[in-house]
Amino acid sequence: MFEAAIKITLKKTVADPQGLTVKHALESLGFNSIANVWMGKFIRITLNAKDKTEAEAKVSEMCKKLLSNPIIEDFSFEVSNA
Amino acid sequence: MFEAAIKITLKKTVADPQGLTVKHALESLGFNSIANVWMGKFIRITLNAKDKTEAEAKVSEMCKKLLSNPIIEDFSFEVSNA
Repeated sequence: MFEAAIKITLKKTVADPQGLTVKHALESLGFNSIANVWMGKFIRITLNAKDKTEAEAKVSEMCKKLLSNPIIEDFSFEVSNA
Repeated sequence: MFEAAIKITLKKTVADPQGLTVKHALESLGFNSIANVWMGKFIRITLNAKDKTEAEAKVSEMCKKLLSNPIIEDFSFEVSNA
């Protein structure tokens, strides 16, 4: 059994209105030293595979086919034994 | 300038219907070896602080006050120089 920890983030060139809203909310709570906030997704998946290489290949395909939108998002992940 | 990479995840005892939906969607695409899927948030924040300890204290407070819901979510983060 393997566990994948996947981060989905907006590409740097894409506007992030949700991040801006969170930045303003933090500032209104008194956090005045924030330069920027970016919102993304964090996904954990446990899966069966015969080895780590196969698990990584599967997770990469999941990211490309469903979990991320490749037009506006980047993904990165780490696979470990679980 | 420091950069914080924050993960917000549902506590293990809390039901995750979004994760279940994503699991079913992946299965319908032919990924049949998935045991479980958990959805969470990934937040990046750049902020000014006089040292790493102060930056970590600030980020921890942000997580408790706004970014996470402590009743149903856990958070973890890493702060690095940016």
